[in-house]
Amino acid sequence: MSERIRIVEDIMGANDRLAAQNRADLDAAGVFAINLMASPGAGKTSLIEKTLEKLAGSLRVAAVDGDIATSIDADRAAAAGATAVQINTGGDCHLDAVMLRQALDQLELDQLDLLIVENVGNLICPASFQLGTHKSVLIASVPEGDDKPYKYPTMYKGVDTLVINKVDLLPYIKFNMDYFRQGVELLNPNLETFPVSCVTAEGLDEWVAWVMGNVEGFKQTGK
Amino acid sequence: MSERIRIVEDIMGANDRLAAQNRADLDAAGVFAINLMASPGAGKTSLIEKTLEKLAGSLRVAAVDGDIATSIDADRAAAAGATAVQINTGGDCHLDAVMLRQALDQLELDQLDLLIVENVGNLICPASFQLGTHKSVLIASVPEGDDKPYKYPTMYKGVDTLVINKVDLLPYIKFNMDYFRQGVELLNPNLETFPVSCVTAEGLDEWVAWVMGNVEGFKQTGK
Repeated sequence: MSERIRIVEDIMGANDRLAAQNRADLDAAGVFAINLMASPGAGKTSLIEKTLEKLAGSLRVAAVDGDIATSIDADRAAAAGATAVQINTGGDCHLDAVMLRQALDQLELDQLDLLIVENVGNLICPASFQLGTHKSVLIASVPEGDDKPYKYPTMYKGVDTLVINKVDLLPYIKFNMDYFRQGVELLNPNLETFPVSCVTAEGLDEWVAWVMGNVEGFKQTGK
Repeated sequence: MSERIRIVEDIMGANDRLAAQNRADLDAAGVFAINLMASPGAGKTSLIEKTLEKLAGSLRVAAVDGDIATSIDADRAAAAGATAVQINTGGDCHLDAVMLRQALDQLELDQLDLLIVENVGNLICPASFQLGTHKSVLIASVPEGDDKPYKYPTMYKGVDTLVINKVDLLPYIKFNMDYFRQGVELLNPNLETFPVSCVTAEGLDEWVAWVMGNVEGFKQTGK
């Protein structure tokens, strides 16, 4: 038993050390990095597409897309104008710092301002693995239901920013925004939240302003 | 390295042996069991509620609800008329045969016809752990998007039956049913599929007839 626990600690220790190295390399190159997490189908790739459209010309952006199979997401990010790297995890349910390291090695970091890492669609496992990014962003989506903060507390506790996607579907779905927000507030008080729709574009300007503000603040503080 | 692989093999071996024991106990008691899997918010609990409503009086049903936190799902299943047992996995991203064993020990199996096991909301990890149930059922939901079979092939390959939930939202969402079904067909040819809506009740009679047919067939073949 203690033998097995030691092994797990070693794995996590190695991951955290490599995450710190990833962060140092991003800092040295002046690249602000976001770890984007969500359930399958919450709209990670759609949000990246819309963000790229709005940022076009103003920032140099790369996307790293984690999936257990296919390059659908990287293809979409590339079509939307990003330098895109697909990580196929080969079945693994989350990205880790080693995988991000391999993706970083394929990018010209000096030529970038912003890196968006699209994690594997999963509300549980990605929360346990640091990658070395600067901010963790969770996308909730209205059709998932208003009880998700209560049911996936680790994920909701661990993120810096929350995007509530698919608000265009609110008229067609039973979703109590007050109940949802109460759950969020219990777990992560004062979490900055952006209700958006990638279909109607509602809320996207505010979200993109947050991204721009972070990239600019990061550059100014000298990283 | 080989040491670590041996440990993993031991864990899976133990899980499969206990899954076989769970199956033997369900068979001996004449209880047909379903392992219900899906993304967070695809509608597992809603489908259980609607199934219980339609089965009311005709079958004795228990629900085992797996979550990383809270008893929201078991509370809903109990309110809908099932004997309900909540398994809090304490952070684990899937149910395993040990957890189901503990739940079975809290049920009077001889007093049941049907057991519905609601797995943790996750399209990846639950696919790797046998529980001892008779059928694996996956719920896809329309708002998740039509690319999910391509992106989560292990889950789509491993199930016996597919429910496509939230078809009432098809008018409001870009979802190419042909593209979705092509992906399913590639991975799991001839997979039996039930398009349903737990809001409008569309398709629920066909789904419940499948459940009833399986329970009756199971009883007739003497397990």
